[in-house]
This record gives sequence, C-alpha cells and structure tokens, in this order.
Amino acid sequence: MTEQGYFTESSSADVVVSRNAAAKDARLAQVMEVITRHLHAAVKEIEPSTEEWLAAIRFLTATGHTCTDWRQEFILLSDVLGVSMLVDAINNRKPSGASESTVLGPFHVADAPELPLGSDICLDQKGDPMTVRGRILGTGGAPIAGAKVDVWQANDEGFYDVQQKGIQPDFNLRGVFRTNAAGEYWFRGVKPKFYPIPDDGPVGRLLNALGRHPYRPAHLHYIISAPGYEPLVTHIFDPDDPYINSDAVFGVKASLMAKFQPTVTEAGTTYAVEHDFVLAPAK
Amino acid sequence: MTEQGYFTESSSADVVVSRNAAAKDARLAQVMEVITRHLHAAVKEIEPSTEEWLAAIRFLTATGHTCTDWRQEFILLSDVLGVSMLVDAINNRKPSGASESTVLGPFHVADAPELPLGSDICLDQKGDPMTVRGRILGTGGAPIAGAKVDVWQANDEGFYDVQQKGIQPDFNLRGVFRTNAAGEYWFRGVKPKFYPIPDDGPVGRLLNALGRHPYRPAHLHYIISAPGYEPLVTHIFDPDDPYINSDAVFGVKASLMAKFQPTVTEAGTTYAVEHDFVLAPAK
Repeated sequence: MTEQGYFTESSSADVVVSRNAAAKDARLAQVMEVITRHLHAAVKEIEPSTEEWLAAIRFLTATGHTCTDWRQEFILLSDVLGVSMLVDAINNRKPSGASESTVLGPFHVADAPELPLGSDICLDQKGDPMTVRGRILGTGGAPIAGAKVDVWQANDEGFYDVQQKGIQPDFNLRGVFRTNAAGEYWFRGVKPKFYPIPDDGPVGRLLNALGRHPYRPAHLHYIISAPGYEPLVTHIFDPDDPYINSDAVFGVKASLMAKFQPTVTEAGTTYAVEHDFVLAPAK
Repeated sequence: MTEQGYFTESSSADVVVSRNAAAKDARLAQVMEVITRHLHAAVKEIEPSTEEWLAAIRFLTATGHTCTDWRQEFILLSDVLGVSMLVDAINNRKPSGASESTVLGPFHVADAPELPLGSDICLDQKGDPMTVRGRILGTGGAPIAGAKVDVWQANDEGFYDVQQKGIQPDFNLRGVFRTNAAGEYWFRGVKPKFYPIPDDGPVGRLLNALGRHPYRPAHLHYIISAPGYEPLVTHIFDPDDPYINSDAVFGVKASLMAKFQPTVTEAGTTYAVEHDFVLAPAK
C-alpha cells in the first residue's frame, strides 16, 4: 500500500470500502459500501465534536438495551425516522389503480378466528359501534370472490388485545373474513382512537427533544389476499383524526383515507365506514 | 397539510425532516436532518428487502446487547467503519508541520505513575527489551521543556495490563514522563506486538463476513501535553508489522511510522525506537 492508501479525512470512505475486497458475499459488500459512504458523508457534514459522537454511541447503546423479547426499540427508531415506511414503499410498488400498502405494525396475530360476514369483532361491547364494508377488486375492476380479509384494530382507548391481556378478551377486535361472490366484505367493530407508540425509552426521548408527539392517528389494519393477486398489507385512516397529518411513524397515505360517517341517536353515536381495495395481479 | 405532504418514496426524507420544525435544540435538528437525508438516500440505493431490513435491525440489537459496563460494541463498530478515526481527524486538524493524532483507544488509564526519565515501564521482564527516545518540539522547531509524555502499550503477547488483571502487574507498561531542558524524553519498555480487537461479538462476525481480519499493528500510545500547546493523542507504529497496511480500526498514518531498530546479541534481541513529536500551538 502506498502512502496515499492510509486513512485521511478526504480518503476515509475509499480506504474503509477498499478493505471489503475479499467479502464473502457480494450483496453484503455492496450494502456496506453504500452505508460506509453515506455514514462518512454524514459525519463530514455534521462535524461532530467528540462529545457529540459519544452521545450518539450512548443513544444507540440505550436503544439496544431497551430491546427485549417483547419490545423492539430499533424497529421503533426505524419507524419514527421514516425508514420502515420507505422500506415498505420500495417493497410494495403497486401498478396504477391498485391500493397502496402501509406498515404491518407489531400487533398482527397469525391465528385470529375466521368469522362469518357481518360478525362483530368487538367482544366486550366497549366504545362506539362501527360497521365496515367494502369490496375487494382486481385492477380491471372485477370483484374478487373468496378473498381473505384479515382485520385488526385498537379499542376505543387505543389499546390492542395483546397489550391488555386479561383486560380485553383474547382475539378482541380481530377477525378473518372471506368476500362473497360479489367481492364484498362487511363486519362490525368499534370506532378506533389515536394512540401513542411506546415513548418511555430512548426513541420517545428523541421525539420529545425534536418537538414531535408520539401519536398514530386512528386506523384499521388489513391484510388482504387472494390467489393470483399480490397480498396487500395496509390500513384505512380516519381523515378527521387530530393526528392525521402527523402520524409518528409516517404510515398515512392520501389514498388510504376512509370517512368514518357518524350517526347520532339518543342511544349514542354509531359510525359507518365503506372502503374498497384494489389488488395488484401476482408478479 | 396538502396531499403532497404525505409520505411517498420520493418525498420521504423531506416529510420526515419537516416534522422537526419545533425541535428544542437547533443543533439536534441539524444533525437529525443530515442523518435522515443520508439514511433515506442509503435505503433508496440499497433497496433492502424486508428480510434484509430485519437483518439490520437484528444486527443493531445484538450490538446493543453486547454492550456492558466493560465492553462497548458500538464504539467498536464505529472503529471498524472508520467513523472513530474520521471524528478524530475532524477534531484534530493540525497546522503544517505538527504531528498527527490518532485514536485514543479504550486502554488509557488516568492515574498512571509519573516516573524518572529512563525508567523501565515493563514490570514483569517479559518480552524483548526496547528503548524509546525522542524530543517534543514546537512547530517552530524549539524544544519544549517539561512537556508531559503519557505512554502506554500492550505487552509482548498483545495484552494491556487492564485486560490481564492479576496476570500482569498493575500499571505494567504505563508511565508519565517529563521532558528535560532539551525537550527530550526516554524510557524503556518491550517490543509491542499486533493484537486483535474483541472479535467474538456482532462486530467480529461482520468483519469475518467482509473478509477482514481483526488485528491492529504493533504500536505505542502517547498523550503529550504542555502549557501553550494543543494536547496530542497519538500512536507510533512499527512499519515492519504484518498488519501495518490493514489496521482494523484505520489508526495508521504515514507520519506516525517509527523504525523499531533491532540489535541481535547472544543474550537476545533488543530494539531502539526514536521519534520526535511536534505540538501545535494552543488555539
């Protein structure tokens, strides 16, 4: 190696990348080259003091120490920096006319019960009743019969059943439905509410220092699948939610708005939601 | 917020950065903007699959879980990606003619004993004896009398005393010296050897996958300080070391080479090293 080959402020990224010439995996070498070049460019733009660099090391360490079997603070960090949504967008580019995806989130349960169309997934009668209906269509507009519609939602206080085991009934506000011959689905639930992401750890403290709130606007989760089509992981959102324009994890898309139409009676308020989804053909 | 304000693949970084408008600290907002833009640019270049994104999450989590009170795996990650050296370079730009800095490393001890010039810092008589001498000068070439020269080194097997408590004597291979009226320092030690950074964790596995070894070439550590001058944190390196062109943490600079001159006798081999340092004036 010549004198030029040693690390200097200007050669830094080239020198680090050149060390990966014998990498065992070409994809890993490519990924690490991109990461190294952007990391060095960011450091050169920021010009961190030694104390600031150490603060970054401490933040990453605290984020790692917050991760347990039941809490993933690095995924939360990815979420609040928009990285999770960007990875979702890259992996779910849809043809024109197909419904858009959004993040899966941590609260999906694989073995929710399959229920008859029209069932009420709210098992504890809490909150304002809501009916949800719509159609599952192909990009050509034809209804898809027998499509699997897996739905889940937080309750009227913003909690999922798995966050309140022993308080909510098991499988509360979850269900799997199959569309009828006209491609229609319908079920009953409760009006969802906005809720905070876990904000008592390093990521919550970062949000606070950045003047950001931790809330996600009210939404319903869907995974929709049918033979011959790309599965769709998405939400629908309440456009009247106070946090609709500032989802802490950037999950909102304009095409995913669904009006939660209220009906006020002496007995209380009920809501009706109607939303069709268009599936892209399988690749 | 208009429809254009929602997160899309093309607007992603702008949307995330716009959320920091109410940040409590302008520097934090600036740092997070640079990090967010480079992070999103890197994700767009890499186009990670969901599985690759999850592998990155798992790597960061394992790195965090490897950090303890006595091991800092995120600093190690920063080291092997050249980030520590880049931060060092940015914070220690020297005027022409002044000696260059390199990383402090994790093995400095604050309270090493001050010793008379010529003392042997090797307390257990292991390894090949070495004499080290040189001068501490200002950028104008004038010797600096009374400069503090804090030195430490690994032993002939590549271990520092703090890594082998109970095996090596306390304060083995450490000492603080003061230059004489001619700006000279000299002491005795042992010929140092290359050694690996901790490679049994996530960072070691990454190096292995990248086809990189974990070794640092043989070196001596210095912190040199004197009133009216910038303190200098640096090493000198053995140019004949097998790893001199591939230091795992990128600490080598051409100006920090110091010939370890051998003398072979019937009693064994001894080494002589001579290296002057030039301190920059205090800012």
